[in-house]
Amino acid sequence: MALEDRVRELAQEVEPADSSAAEAARERHRRLLKPPGSLGRLEELGVRLAAMAGECPPPVPESPAVVVCAGDHGVLKQGVSPWPREVTATMVENFCRGGAAVNALAKGVGARVSVLDVGVASDLVRHPLLRGAKVRRGTEDLSEGPAMGREEAARAVLAGAGIVEELVESGGVDLLVTGDMGIGNTTPAACLIAAFTGRPAREVTGRGTGIDDATLETKIGVVQRALELHRPDPGDPMGTLAALGGLEHAALAGAILMGAVYGIPVVLDGVVSNSAALVARAFAPNSVDYTVAGHLSAEPGAGVALDELSLEPLLDLAMRLGEGTGGLLAVPLVRSAARVLGEMSTLEEAGIS
Amino acid sequence: MALEDRVRELAQEVEPADSSAAEAARERHRRLLKPPGSLGRLEELGVRLAAMAGECPPPVPESPAVVVCAGDHGVLKQGVSPWPREVTATMVENFCRGGAAVNALAKGVGARVSVLDVGVASDLVRHPLLRGAKVRRGTEDLSEGPAMGREEAARAVLAGAGIVEELVESGGVDLLVTGDMGIGNTTPAACLIAAFTGRPAREVTGRGTGIDDATLETKIGVVQRALELHRPDPGDPMGTLAALGGLEHAALAGAILMGAVYGIPVVLDGVVSNSAALVARAFAPNSVDYTVAGHLSAEPGAGVALDELSLEPLLDLAMRLGEGTGGLLAVPLVRSAARVLGEMSTLEEAGIS
Repeated sequence: MALEDRVRELAQEVEPADSSAAEAARERHRRLLKPPGSLGRLEELGVRLAAMAGECPPPVPESPAVVVCAGDHGVLKQGVSPWPREVTATMVENFCRGGAAVNALAKGVGARVSVLDVGVASDLVRHPLLRGAKVRRGTEDLSEGPAMGREEAARAVLAGAGIVEELVESGGVDLLVTGDMGIGNTTPAACLIAAFTGRPAREVTGRGTGIDDATLETKIGVVQRALELHRPDPGDPMGTLAALGGLEHAALAGAILMGAVYGIPVVLDGVVSNSAALVARAFAPNSVDYTVAGHLSAEPGAGVALDELSLEPLLDLAMRLGEGTGGLLAVPLVRSAARVLGEMSTLEEAGIS
Repeated sequence: MALEDRVRELAQEVEPADSSAAEAARERHRRLLKPPGSLGRLEELGVRLAAMAGECPPPVPESPAVVVCAGDHGVLKQGVSPWPREVTATMVENFCRGGAAVNALAKGVGARVSVLDVGVASDLVRHPLLRGAKVRRGTEDLSEGPAMGREEAARAVLAGAGIVEELVESGGVDLLVTGDMGIGNTTPAACLIAAFTGRPAREVTGRGTGIDDATLETKIGVVQRALELHRPDPGDPMGTLAALGGLEHAALAGAILMGAVYGIPVVLDGVVSNSAALVARAFAPNSVDYTVAGHLSAEPGAGVALDELSLEPLLDLAMRLGEGTGGLLAVPLVRSAARVLGEMSTLEEAGIS
């Protein structure tokens, strides 16, 4: 079967979350030992987790994994980042060695780290944490032509889906955190967010890892030109991804879709994951039911994307690192939201009427 | 020694946090494997934890405890809450049985639960989780006279300090979460916040567990009358506490002071804890160095108090339950902030210049 057809099939497997389990959770929250609504957004999260799991109380996720999808970007030559391309590969090595932020934060919540190379521009040394599924060595410059071909985009989507399938089937993973690594990857993220929300380049483009005013203006210009060049059709997610995306964005979209197929919570990290969630939604509208916005990245496109997805971020700590760090920090909140539904007494059991 | 003198001595034992450890943490954050500042407020929190511990990296807290201070309130007879007084005792029993929200969330972060009865209006059954240190059976109605005597307030402060001393000395507790239980206790919290910030009753008084418009107007009127009656002097924290506080508010102030003496992070829960932190600061200005605002309660006084303390809350989930729930949810963030300072490689170690 053609790769695009396989992506379409994957998308069709995403079922809407279970509204009767959600209603059972709402009802249970009204009966629990607390004033109604007093756990605020933790209650709403619990309701969503019940809907994802199709049962109330929802299970407390015990085996989370963060999947860090990595790729390089041809658009880097337009001067959108001060970091050289080689840093992507170096960071992947550091994820494997265990000294990066994602490792420290994953350890904190007991999450395993998996790194997926879908498009790093150099050869990487084999490592147990690293899964090689390189589609190509970085994308083309999206401001001059399509970032990649449609079949390449589809291959990256399927690679992201594949690693999640493996983690769930063989590893018993019951919660997914999306992470990304790719020098220059907030530029394609901004392009995708603009394409799927219709918002102008200036509103969705930010300073990434911390660029200066002049570089920001360059970056906004690049995003603008790319949008004018490709005139993306949000009704054609594969075409939009191929024209304006990155290989890790495509893989993340696939990871989100596969997480949704399995009905596990998919905790989004920052702007790159947010842009991938828009892609996933364009493939399968119900995939949003399974996504949780871990945090609000400092990157302006993040808030725009989350608004479009009607997702309210759990954390807002002005972070802009990527790697899955903001998503990992939200894992204990997800667990807590499930735990209160499963472990608290009811008012009746507690002797309060 | 008179009880008030013992509180004064306790307050004098609070040392300012270590600014050189803070500077070492700032310096280390600049060298870690990430763009400078990209972990946002998690970096600031790490800097504060280093200052509290007097070392960089700061230790990752392994043995947290939540201390839930409980008391009843004479002001309840003014109709400030729909819940009957007896619910305070019933909830304490439920904390001991393990079915309340605080239990579920404490389990989630591996925190032990200690309940301190400083002022519940009825006799409580003995239980290993419950420490009896009843100063009196609830306060007097603060809108008609002082809530308690100065010596009583001091006794409650020392009871809160005492349980923390015991938890640290015998239990190895290395992080404290403050919690509260007391039907009607957001009214004295509003009074204390108004007294220490100078803000009017209407700005600091809220719906507590969820009262209707008419009850809210009653509650605002009660706070206003109490402030006019007592004309509190914020330079006299014991007098202010005795006139307008609650026994659990006093105990929480003592718990915060003792946490600060030991140099451990004190993670504040919602509005009652926030009001107690203002009292603690009035006794010992440096105590603020050791407090972390776990979350922003939905109660308006919470934000007013935290602004006054220059503390930015870690979470904002529209919660208004108390018991320590919002503080407990923030514990993983505190651990993560310490962990990144201790475990991440530097740019140099990672081969990035």
